[in-house]
Amino acid sequence: MKTIAIVNMQDYNPGLHILSTFSAGEDQLTNADLCRRNFDELISELSLQKVGEVYHSFEEGGYTAVVCLTESHVSIHTWPEHKLATFDVFLSNFEKDNSEKVRAFFNRTIALFNGTVISKQEIFR
Amino acid sequence: MKTIAIVNMQDYNPGLHILSTFSAGEDQLTNADLCRRNFDELISELSLQKVGEVYHSFEEGGYTAVVCLTESHVSIHTWPEHKLATFDVFLSNFEKDNSEKVRAFFNRTIALFNGTVISKQEIFR
Repeated sequence: MKTIAIVNMQDYNPGLHILSTFSAGEDQLTNADLCRRNFDELISELSLQKVGEVYHSFEEGGYTAVVCLTESHVSIHTWPEHKLATFDVFLSNFEKDNSEKVRAFFNRTIALFNGTVISKQEIFR
Repeated sequence: MKTIAIVNMQDYNPGLHILSTFSAGEDQLTNADLCRRNFDELISELSLQKVGEVYHSFEEGGYTAVVCLTESHVSIHTWPEHKLATFDVFLSNFEKDNSEKVRAFFNRTIALFNGTVISKQEIFR
């Protein structure tokens, strides 16, 4: 019984979740269309599969977005009044280990946004 | 200059994010419509504001969902083959502290899903 339990734990290995806060310029934090183009480019580059998305712009200037992937999700919530965004990437490991894709999505996003990382946490779920 | 920096940090207080894994029955982990009804009930109960959502069911039986709120987001990814789900609630503190609503959303979801919490992390972002 114990062996089976261990095997089950190894089978269930949902993946790496990066949670971060980064600073960026006003255009990056108010232009939801630019964010969508950046995310779509990365989803294509990394061969991820999008199953739906929500991009919502606030009157105050910021936006909030979630992108649902077969591999899990990406989210961003921007605070242009503070030049900051909270940004998450979580990819499950169904069929293969996607940890390097999580890190690549994170690093490429920061580069595309010309951002500066304020905080970053890697959580293996 | 230092005082201004501290004030900015206090102003930027995006909120509590709960990340969890819970176990539940097959119906709860395969029935995306039931999940949507549960989440919509909680969004209404807690006076949150939904701006969009994605619910996607997989052929294998699980589903993945993200709900975009003006207050940030909720996500769930189910693994019925392991009787598990990864579940996140993140509400920003724009205008008021929503930490208790995060905990209420989390606890009420576990109750509505008749779930058992396997792991839970509270991250103040």
